[in-house]
Amino acid sequence: MAGILPPGVSEKTFRGFVAAAQNVVGNDYVFLDPKWDLSAYHDQYATTPKAAHQASAAVAPANVEQVQAVLRAARQHGVPVWTISTGKNFAYGGPAPRVAGTVVLDLKRMNRIIEVNEKHAYAVVEPGVSYFDLYRHLQKIGSKLWIDPAAPGWGGVLGNLVDHGAGYTPYGDHLLMQCGMEVVLADGTVTQTAMGALPGSRTTHLYKYGMGPWADGLFTQSNFGVVTRIGIWLMPEPPGYKPYMITYEREDDLHEITERVRPLKLNMVIPNAATTVEMLWETAVQKQKRDYYTGKGPLPDSARKKIREDLRIGVWNFYGAAYGPPPIMETNLEVIRDALVSIPGAKIYFDEDRVGDIAWEYRKQLMRGVPNMTEYNLMNWIPNGGHMDFSPISPVTGEDAMRQYHLIRDRCNKAGFDYIGEMLVGWRDMHHIFCLLYDLGDEDQKRRAHALFEELIAAAAAAGYGEYRTHLDFMDRIAGTYNWNGGAQQKLHQKLKDRLDPAGILSPGKMGIWPQGHHPGAVS
Amino acid sequence: MAGILPPGVSEKTFRGFVAAAQNVVGNDYVFLDPKWDLSAYHDQYATTPKAAHQASAAVAPANVEQVQAVLRAARQHGVPVWTISTGKNFAYGGPAPRVAGTVVLDLKRMNRIIEVNEKHAYAVVEPGVSYFDLYRHLQKIGSKLWIDPAAPGWGGVLGNLVDHGAGYTPYGDHLLMQCGMEVVLADGTVTQTAMGALPGSRTTHLYKYGMGPWADGLFTQSNFGVVTRIGIWLMPEPPGYKPYMITYEREDDLHEITERVRPLKLNMVIPNAATTVEMLWETAVQKQKRDYYTGKGPLPDSARKKIREDLRIGVWNFYGAAYGPPPIMETNLEVIRDALVSIPGAKIYFDEDRVGDIAWEYRKQLMRGVPNMTEYNLMNWIPNGGHMDFSPISPVTGEDAMRQYHLIRDRCNKAGFDYIGEMLVGWRDMHHIFCLLYDLGDEDQKRRAHALFEELIAAAAAAGYGEYRTHLDFMDRIAGTYNWNGGAQQKLHQKLKDRLDPAGILSPGKMGIWPQGHHPGAVS
Repeated sequence: MAGILPPGVSEKTFRGFVAAAQNVVGNDYVFLDPKWDLSAYHDQYATTPKAAHQASAAVAPANVEQVQAVLRAARQHGVPVWTISTGKNFAYGGPAPRVAGTVVLDLKRMNRIIEVNEKHAYAVVEPGVSYFDLYRHLQKIGSKLWIDPAAPGWGGVLGNLVDHGAGYTPYGDHLLMQCGMEVVLADGTVTQTAMGALPGSRTTHLYKYGMGPWADGLFTQSNFGVVTRIGIWLMPEPPGYKPYMITYEREDDLHEITERVRPLKLNMVIPNAATTVEMLWETAVQKQKRDYYTGKGPLPDSARKKIREDLRIGVWNFYGAAYGPPPIMETNLEVIRDALVSIPGAKIYFDEDRVGDIAWEYRKQLMRGVPNMTEYNLMNWIPNGGHMDFSPISPVTGEDAMRQYHLIRDRCNKAGFDYIGEMLVGWRDMHHIFCLLYDLGDEDQKRRAHALFEELIAAAAAAGYGEYRTHLDFMDRIAGTYNWNGGAQQKLHQKLKDRLDPAGILSPGKMGIWPQGHHPGAVS
Repeated sequence: MAGILPPGVSEKTFRGFVAAAQNVVGNDYVFLDPKWDLSAYHDQYATTPKAAHQASAAVAPANVEQVQAVLRAARQHGVPVWTISTGKNFAYGGPAPRVAGTVVLDLKRMNRIIEVNEKHAYAVVEPGVSYFDLYRHLQKIGSKLWIDPAAPGWGGVLGNLVDHGAGYTPYGDHLLMQCGMEVVLADGTVTQTAMGALPGSRTTHLYKYGMGPWADGLFTQSNFGVVTRIGIWLMPEPPGYKPYMITYEREDDLHEITERVRPLKLNMVIPNAATTVEMLWETAVQKQKRDYYTGKGPLPDSARKKIREDLRIGVWNFYGAAYGPPPIMETNLEVIRDALVSIPGAKIYFDEDRVGDIAWEYRKQLMRGVPNMTEYNLMNWIPNGGHMDFSPISPVTGEDAMRQYHLIRDRCNKAGFDYIGEMLVGWRDMHHIFCLLYDLGDEDQKRRAHALFEELIAAAAAAGYGEYRTHLDFMDRIAGTYNWNGGAQQKLHQKLKDRLDPAGILSPGKMGIWPQGHHPGAVS
């Protein structure tokens, strides 16, 4: 039987739950150590000991009825479950539960693509459908619809969306593109939200809000229900696509790039995620650090210079794309050229200029919705590479961009790490993604990475910046920074939690929300 | 003192509440009959007796602290309040409460425009700010930002948004453009949602979702809190604007128009609400029925023909606009012409072709965000005109458009009313707005209008169509059509209501959501 038990649950009760779960999903789909290897549910990149997020078991239902029955068993035995879809939420904890001993509710067997609607341009998927799955299906049926994958294509369409993930096509704000949702509540009730609540509804995936309160957002980044189906709008293939890359010579160019990108995004001259990528991100997807530097600490300037020459990249590298009929693309590209290539030292590149460039190639794919795994090469920058992403949101101003860059880069270098970062400008905000990369075989590095992360949270919050998503280990701490008026919003979340999941069986601790009486303290 | 009391509240308790409210907002801002005329809080267009929605009093706080204090008094005395912003929600009940005796919580004194951010293109407003107010303020400060008004410009920016209202510019989905919200909960707690929950946040109105569950939608079309402040994204003035109108000769053209509009909307060739307006809507904003027909019942075909000639309009009249730099507008207009003007009999008109046309003029204003009141002329079509809007959502297909048109038009004509309707195509849905117009001085007409409305709800639901918004009198009935799986969604709403407002003081009955134990029955 399991080496670890859910908190406060006796071995006997746990056995009762396991038997009930086996009865529901069959013995083959209840995973227990040592017979099955629960390491599949580890966070492979954890800076804390594996035991901190060790599951006691995993249960993989095949359909909604089985989800309902598993939740019934969970309620009856007081066993909490941690919901995952494809479990590829790496950098943020992967498939591992927040609290050791929680049973993973693994939905990856529920992998039906329930509908592709070519006419109204949407798909309806279950949690186990990855970007690769959906892409291949659309290709197979000859669809003219694009998907918007997260950078690693093995991610789940539904899971990424409910975690507020972003992509690189004009449909990059995944939650914005959500329409229609099926949720199993903690008490086992299946609910269709919004228009889907009308029996025989013809507009479930066409109009987002329904009538009355719009509750869909409640079931994202939360532990208020188990989302078992989602509608997602897909972009019709445009008549033309022209990606481009602009390189910049100086670190301080980030200020001017950001200032000039803001109106281009606001006016949709750049319709997709306008992404400014620091040189080491570009480098790490295709080179190893030891190719340039074998010393300790961050890469020195001399090596950085050599890399820029070798790879023909800038200190900052801006990616965007034009979409549409040629006259519209040309008009927009002219504006972009005027605005962004006029910064001294800037050079613009198109597809024919970057043949064989790995970094260019995968961004070109992402911006037109072709999933791939290239970005995972980042992990090969150093031996035994692991990573966590620190993801503060920024206004789209040069001042804020520079402030966030220095806030992170300076602390990161001081702690001995390379700054590997990118900034994605959405309609009015900027996602700053700092990929904190460390050697998983080096306990000291892991400790330092963990400490750096904590330091960054505090420094960002003090400067007015909050994170949009985070790793298991920092959920309480970050939730604790959203504490305006005595933590009014968090108290609201807790109230909703208490009402919707009084037994506290759903994903305890997710985003800092806990079952009543089980809060381990505001800061972990 | 009041002629009517809140349900279950004694005169003495009510007096206690009134004294407490006077103490908070001052005697001048607690309105009571007969000293003040509470008819300002009537639904002027009600088909039911005034007494059905008669307020016992109205209280107008000046700020958030006063809202908190009024809610405290409401809890202490068990007096329910019905929140309104500018109170111009006509066609859906105006400022009147669902339940007679409810005290109106009138927020129109809270009318500060708290921020206009030119750089990131948004505004932050309080509930009392009308479209006219915001428009005039932007003009005064020389802003280059557009607003997106509802058709009648006296409506509240915040109130319309939380009721899921729509407009006619590319920013017409108001809830989509919402970012950042301040809510006073029933227990008096003030909460900033999403990024605003971070003290000193620099991204409150830039990134919608915050970290953790996204609760904003909960406070729209609901009675879960009092929204006291909202951030709304504004459209930067484009370099060009070219509105157009296309007239169609035959009733059945609606099928083909809708089929051809769908891909144009999906691909953003038409970026704003693509609106197909039936001829009587066009007519009623500038003519009176008696000019063409003095008989009973709907307008006969002979009169319809005469009107079309006089006004140079079609049976259907399509409105859209091109926005952007000239080459982009020209490219899009060429596609639009190819797709929409190739339907036999179609004629396209631009500004120079419709000089002096009242219908054209106000739509031209709306599509570029200039608020006006022209659409209110509809009420003058018949003597003592009053109206309610029946608003089902439809897929964007010819088949659905025709089915909805016949479903409504046939029943409407049979009941003796004119069909006055328009269909607004959004990104993937169509709002069908049927303006049911009746003579307020004719009791029989009001009875028939009420009965027709009930019939339409049932017929639409049976065909898979749900309404997105409705009048006070039909909230329970429509909420009752969203009854998939035993009313799972409505039960969820009730659960949330019970937890967030256990005393049941906020807007009882709004959208069919009731305080525990006070549900008057699923169908009113």
